Amino acid sequence: MRPSGRNLSQMRPISIETGVMAHAEGSCLIRVGKTHVLCTASLEETPPRFLKGTGLGWVTAEYGMLPRATNTRNRREAAQGKQSGRTQEIQRLIGRSLRAGVDRSALGERQITIDCDVIQADGGTRCASITGGWVALRLAVNKLLKAGAITSDPIMDHVAAVSCGIYAGQAVLDLDYAEDSEAGTDGNFVLTGAGRLIEVQMSAEGATFSRDQMGQLLDLAEGGMADLVAAQKAAVA
Amino acid sequence: MRPSGRNLSQMRPISIETGVMAHAEGSCLIRVGKTHVLCTASLEETPPRFLKGTGLGWVTAEYGMLPRATNTRNRREAAQGKQSGRTQEIQRLIGRSLRAGVDRSALGERQITIDCDVIQADGGTRCASITGGWVALRLAVNKLLKAGAITSDPIMDHVAAVSCGIYAGQAVLDLDYAEDSEAGTDGNFVLTGAGRLIEVQMSAEGATFSRDQMGQLLDLAEGGMADLVAAQKAAVA
Amino acid sequence: MRPSGRNLSQMRPISIETGVMAHAEGSCLIRVGKTHVLCTASLEETPPRFLKGTGLGWVTAEYGMLPRATNTRNRREAAQGKQSGRTQEIQRLIGRSLRAGVDRSALGERQITIDCDVIQADGGTRCASITGGWVALRLAVNKLLKAGAITSDPIMDHVAAVSCGIYAGQAVLDLDYAEDSEAGTDGNFVLTGAGRLIEVQMSAEGATFSRDQMGQLLDLAEGGMADLVAAQKAAVA
Amino acid sequence: MRPSGRNLSQMRPISIETGVMAHAEGSCLIRVGKTHVLCTASLEETPPRFLKGTGLGWVTAEYGMLPRATNTRNRREAAQGKQSGRTQEIQRLIGRSLRAGVDRSALGERQITIDCDVIQADGGTRCASITGGWVALRLAVNKLLKAGAITSDPIMDHVAAVSCGIYAGQAVLDLDYAEDSEAGTDGNFVLTGAGRLIEVQMSAEGATFSRDQMGQLLDLAEGGMADLVAAQKAAVA
Amino acid sequence: MRPSGRNLSQMRPISIETGVMAHAEGSCLIRVGKTHVLCTASLEETPPRFLKGTGLGWVTAEYGMLPRATNTRNRREAAQGKQSGRTQEIQRLIGRSLRAGVDRSALGERQITIDCDVIQADGGTRCASITGGWVALRLAVNKLLKAGAITSDPIMDHVAAVSCGIYAGQAVLDLDYAEDSEAGTDGNFVLTGAGRLIEVQMSAEGATFSRDQMGQLLDLAEGGMADLVAAQKAAVA
Amino acid sequence: MRPSGRNLSQMRPISIETGVMAHAEGSCLIRVGKTHVLCTASLEETPPRFLKGTGLGWVTAEYGMLPRATNTRNRREAAQGKQSGRTQEIQRLIGRSLRAGVDRSALGERQITIDCDVIQADGGTRCASITGGWVALRLAVNKLLKAGAITSDPIMDHVAAVSCGIYAGQAVLDLDYAEDSEAGTDGNFVLTGAGRLIEVQMSAEGATFSRDQMGQLLDLAEGGMADLVAAQKAAVA
Repeated sequence: MRPSGRNLSQMRPISIETGVMAHAEGSCLIRVGKTHVLCTASLEETPPRFLKGTGLGWVTAEYGMLPRATNTRNRREAAQGKQSGRTQEIQRLIGRSLRAGVDRSALGERQITIDCDVIQADGGTRCASITGGWVALRLAVNKLLKAGAITSDPIMDHVAAVSCGIYAGQAVLDLDYAEDSEAGTDGNFVLTGAGRLIEVQMSAEGATFSRDQMGQLLDLAEGGMADLVAAQKAAVA
Repeated sequence: MRPSGRNLSQMRPISIETGVMAHAEGSCLIRVGKTHVLCTASLEETPPRFLKGTGLGWVTAEYGMLPRATNTRNRREAAQGKQSGRTQEIQRLIGRSLRAGVDRSALGERQITIDCDVIQADGGTRCASITGGWVALRLAVNKLLKAGAITSDPIMDHVAAVSCGIYAGQAVLDLDYAEDSEAGTDGNFVLTGAGRLIEVQMSAEGATFSRDQMGQLLDLAEGGMADLVAAQKAAVA
Repeated sequence: MRPSGRNLSQMRPISIETGVMAHAEGSCLIRVGKTHVLCTASLEETPPRFLKGTGLGWVTAEYGMLPRATNTRNRREAAQGKQSGRTQEIQRLIGRSLRAGVDRSALGERQITIDCDVIQADGGTRCASITGGWVALRLAVNKLLKAGAITSDPIMDHVAAVSCGIYAGQAVLDLDYAEDSEAGTDGNFVLTGAGRLIEVQMSAEGATFSRDQMGQLLDLAEGGMADLVAAQKAAVA
Repeated sequence: MRPSGRNLSQMRPISIETGVMAHAEGSCLIRVGKTHVLCTASLEETPPRFLKGTGLGWVTAEYGMLPRATNTRNRREAAQGKQSGRTQEIQRLIGRSLRAGVDRSALGERQITIDCDVIQADGGTRCASITGGWVALRLAVNKLLKAGAITSDPIMDHVAAVSCGIYAGQAVLDLDYAEDSEAGTDGNFVLTGAGRLIEVQMSAEGATFSRDQMGQLLDLAEGGMADLVAAQKAAVA
Repeated sequence: MRPSGRNLSQMRPISIETGVMAHAEGSCLIRVGKTHVLCTASLEETPPRFLKGTGLGWVTAEYGMLPRATNTRNRREAAQGKQSGRTQEIQRLIGRSLRAGVDRSALGERQITIDCDVIQADGGTRCASITGGWVALRLAVNKLLKAGAITSDPIMDHVAAVSCGIYAGQAVLDLDYAEDSEAGTDGNFVLTGAGRLIEVQMSAEGATFSRDQMGQLLDLAEGGMADLVAAQKAAVA
Repeated sequence: MRPSGRNLSQMRPISIETGVMAHAEGSCLIRVGKTHVLCTASLEETPPRFLKGTGLGWVTAEYGMLPRATNTRNRREAAQGKQSGRTQEIQRLIGRSLRAGVDRSALGERQITIDCDVIQADGGTRCASITGGWVALRLAVNKLLKAGAITSDPIMDHVAAVSCGIYAGQAVLDLDYAEDSEAGTDGNFVLTGAGRLIEVQMSAEGATFSRDQMGQLLDLAEGGMADLVAAQKAAVA
C-alpha cells in the first residue's frame, strides 16, 4: 500500500560513502533511498566568541539544498539574499541534535561546523542530514584523537534520525516525498545509539493525532534506528 | 523546589483580556504569569495568491518581541534587517498550530493574520502566543459569523499550548524563565480542546530523555490544558 | 467643529502609567487619547564606541509600531527587512530631542536606549513617544542617582512634545488621526519645561502657511505643554 | 566673525548651470559656495501605482552623496546595502517640498523623479538640493508644456530653501560646514517665491532656542530667498 | 616542472557523468582533475518577462560553491545574505558563454536555467562549469526535440572553456589551484567546437604580459579544446 | 560609416580636468566624448586588515553611476539595497587594473580608494574610469611623495583602457553607446604606457569571433593608447 511497495516498518536502503570531499576533516555522502546529502565537517581551532575562556567547544550546522534537488527548481537562497525560515529551522535542529551527543568539555575550545547540502531530495532530508552529519563529525573527531589534539573522546554515542508519519491511516517508517506530501501527521525523531531521545517533533499536517498514534510512530522510529546505526558503524569502521 | 514555589503540575495564573486593540478584528492580551503577549487578528478579504480560486482560506501568524521584554535588551529585529531563525521558527509553529484547528473550506477565500507581540517575557512565549492567538482568531471569526459573511463556523475546536520540562530531575508543568534556562529537557505541546495532539516538540537541552519522561511531560501538558481552555472560554464568552 | 468635539486649544486626555515593564530600568505606558505608546529605558554601562574616553554619555531612541496599531494592518518592519524612512526619521527625532535635555557630561560614559513602541495609533505617536520617553529616561536616571552611580542629575529639564495643525482652516492643538489626515499644515513642537524650543518641524501638507499661522501653532503648543509637563510630574512623583 | 568673512545676513555666491546632463528632461548643477549638487528631473509617463486612475501626478526625489564629497571619505551607500536614515530623511523632505509647489491635477497622471546628487559638500546640501531640484523640475515641465502634453502650468510658484542658525551666539544666514558643525541651533526653511512657508525644521543641536531666536532665523531666511529666487529665474530664463 | 607533473600543454583527466540528478531535464557531474562541478538544466516553458512576445528564448546560469569545496571553509553565501562579486561575475560569464552557442529563435519562448554547483574546487571551476553546463543544456534540449516541442535544433555548436596561464615563466594549459595561485598572468578562454572565440579574459595577476604570451596562451587553449569537446561528445552520445 | 562619423581607428576627444574635488587627495573629471566620469583618490594611512604587518599597501576601486547618467533613468543602487553584478564586476576590474601598475611595497602600509562615479554615460565607462582613476591615483601619490611620506615612486607606469569592437562587420576603436549596443563582439583592453597588457576581456555579444579579429581589435587598442597616455601626461604635468 506504500507507493514504494515497502512494508510499513521498512526503511529505504541506506548507504554512507565516506571521504568524498578532498579538503574536509570529515565527510560523507549519505543516501537514504533517493535522498542524497553531502555532509562535511570543518574544524576550526578557535571556538565561537561566546565560548572563549570557558574550556568548552561547539558543534554547529548549516543546511542547504541545490536548486534542482527537487522536482521543480527552487530559487537559490544565496540569490534571494536570505535563508528561508525552513532552512534556518532545519539547521538549528541539526546543530542541536549533534551537540546532544557531544561532551563539549572533552572537545575543548574548538569549533566543528557540519555542512549538510542536499544534492537530491525525496523526503527526509533533515533526518539524513543528522545521520550523515554524525558520520562527518565522527571522522573529524577521529583525526583530532589520532593527532593527539584531544585525549578523551568527546563523542558520547551515535546520533541518528528518521521520520515517521500517518500515511493513508497507517503509521509508516521513513516517509519518502510521495508519502510526506500526503501524510496527515508526520514526525521527526532523533535518537542516540542507546535509544535515548534527543528530539521529537510531531506535527498535525491536516489531521490531529492521538497519544496512541504518537506511540506507534515512536515505536517505528526506534525500530529504524537499528538500520541507521548499523550503517553509521559500517561507514566509520 | 520550583523557584516560584509552584507544585510540579501547577500552571502560572492565566488571564486573557479581550478587545484591547481598537482597530483589530479580534485581540487579546494574554498573561501567563509574567509572560505577557498581545495577540491581534487582522482580516483580509482576499486569500494569499497560492489559494486564489481554491475556495480555501488561510490563517498565518507573525511573532515579535519588544526589545526590552527581556532582562537585558535585545536588538530590534527591524533594525537588524532580519528576523532571527528563532522568530521564524516560532511564527511558523503558531500559524501551523492554529490552522490545524480551522476548517479552511468553511473560512472561504480570505486570510486572517495573527500577530503575537511579546510585551514581557518570562518563558513560554510561544505557547502563550498560540493560546492567546486562538482567542484573537475566535473573536475575528465571530465577527464574520455575526456579519453573515460566513455561515458555518470554521473553528473546529480550541487550540492551546503549554511547555513542560525536566527541571532538577523532575517533570514540571509550564516552565518559567528561571526553570527553562536550567531545564535539561523541555517540550512544547499544542493540543485541541478535545485533547487531540497538534504539535509535540521536545528537545534535549543538555540531557537526553527517555520514553517514560516523554510520557510524564505529556501527562502534565494534558493536565494544564484544562486551565488554558477554561481561560479561553471565559475570555470569549 | 473638531471630529472629537474638543476645543481648538484642548489636548486629549493624557495618562502616564509607570513601572509597566518588569525588566526595564525605567518604563511607562503613555496614553494621549487613543494613541498608546510603551516607552522603556535600557541602561548600558558602556557608551557607544565613538564616545569612549570622552567622559560623555549618550541617549538614543528606537521607534516601532505594532502591525495592527493602525486601522489597517501594516507590514512588520522586521519581516520586510528594513525600517522605513518614516521610522528612522522619527527615532532620530526622539533621540535628538531627549539628548537636548541631558547634560551628557553629568551622565558619564554610559548609554541609555529609549524604546518607543506604539501599541495603538491615533495620530501624534512621535510626540507621545518623546513625552513618554522622557518619563522612562527620568526613572532610569533616578535609579542611577539613588544607587550613587552618578552624583549630579544629568537631566536639566522636562522635554515634551505636541503636534498642532491647520485643520478646516483653523489652528488646532494635538491633532488626532482624523484631523491629521485632513490637515493642510501640521507641525511637531518639542519644548522644555521652561518653554525653550528644542525642535520645530512644520510641513505644508497640501497648503502652504504663513508666518502668522506658524505663530498660532506655536502658541497652541506652548499652551499644551502645561498639561504634558503636569502629567510627567505626576507620573514620576 | 564668520569663518568665511561673510556678513550675518549674507548668502554664499549662488550659481545654477542648466542643461548639464545630456539625457535628463531637466537638469542643473547648483553651486552654493563650495556646496555643489547635480539635480536632474526624469519624466515617466505613468504615475506610481497608488495614483492610477486618480488623474493626479507625482513628484518624488532621491538624494545621494558621492563618497568623497566630504572631507573624509564616506562609505558608499550602495556598497553598504542601504540608505542611511539621514539620506531618507533628506529625500523625503525634498520630495515633500517640491510637491507643495505643484498642482498635481494639472500635471496629470505622470511622475517626475528629481535626483539630487551631492558632488561636493560644504553645508546646506539639502537646501541646495531643493533649490536646484526646483530648476530641474521647471525645465522638465517646460518641455511638457512646449510639447503640448499638458496645457496649464502645474508649477504654482518657486520653491527654494536655505539654512540659518545660531553661530557663536548670533543668528546667521546660509551656514557653511564650518558654521554648521559648531552651531548650537540650526534650521532649514523652505519657502515659495511669494514668501509662503512650506517647511520649517529647527533643531537644538546642543543649545535650546527661544521664540525670538526662531523669529530672527526666519527673518534671515526670508531675506535669503530673494537671492535664491533670482538665481532660479536667471537659470530658467 | 608543474606541481602535478603534467606537460605544459596537458589537460587534467576529464570525466563527464550524465543523468546524475533524478529531477533535472539535463544534468552531469563534470570532473576536471580534482575540480568537480554538478551541472543541471532546468526548463521553464515561459521566458523571462523582457522576452514575452519576442519569439526568443533565454539561457541563464547560476553558480555556487559548497562551503567546504575548498581547502578552508568559505562562508555560505545564503547565510551571508548575498552572492559575492566573484560569484556574480562567474555566473554572468557562464550564461553569456552558453547563450553564444544557442539560436534563441529556434529555442522559442522558454527559459533554461543552468545551475553549476562546485562540489570540490581545485582551480578552473568557471571553465568546468561552462563545459559541463553545455552538456546539461544539450541534454535538456534533446528532450525538447524528442518531445517535438521544438523542431530545429537551437544548439549551434559545442561550447567549452579552459584556463591557461604563465606559471613559473612558462605558458601552461589548464591551471590547477597550486598553479593558479602562483601564476603571474592567467586567462580563461571560451571557444566553440569549430574553434571560434566566445570569451577571452586575461588578467595580469602580479605580472603584465606581452602580445606574444597572449598568443601562446591562446594556442594552448585551442589545443585543450579537442579534449574537452571529445569528452562532451562521449557524454551526450 | 560610424554613427559619430569617426574613422575606424579614431578615438573620441579626451579631456581630463584635475583638481575638481576640493577634499580628495587626487581627483579628475575625465571626458571621453559624451562619457564623463568623476574620479577621486582617497588616502587612508592604514591598510586593509589582511595586509597588516606585511609592509604592502593596497589600491582598490568603487564604481557608481548617477541614476540619470543614461538615456532612461536607472534605479539607484543604494535604494535597491545592493550593487548589481555589473557594478561589482566593473569595480573589481578597475581595482585589479590599477594595482597592476603599482609597486605595493613602495606604497607601504596604506590604502588608496579610487571612486569612479559616472556622471554621464555614452559607452566605455569602465575604460574611462580606469584611465581617469590612474590620474587621481597619480595625483594622490604625488602628494605622498612631496610630503616625504614615501621616498620611492610606487607607480611603475601609466595604466589606461579602451574598448574596441566589431561594428557592422568592421573593427572599430573606442565604441560609443550607439556602436556598443549593436556590436557583435566587443572587448576592453587595459595596457601600460609601455604597451604591456594588463587585462583583455573580449565577449561575443551575438557573434563569435576569430583569432584574426581579436588581433585587429588589439591593434586598434594599442593605437588608442597613445592618445590616452598623452592626455594623462598633460593632465598630471
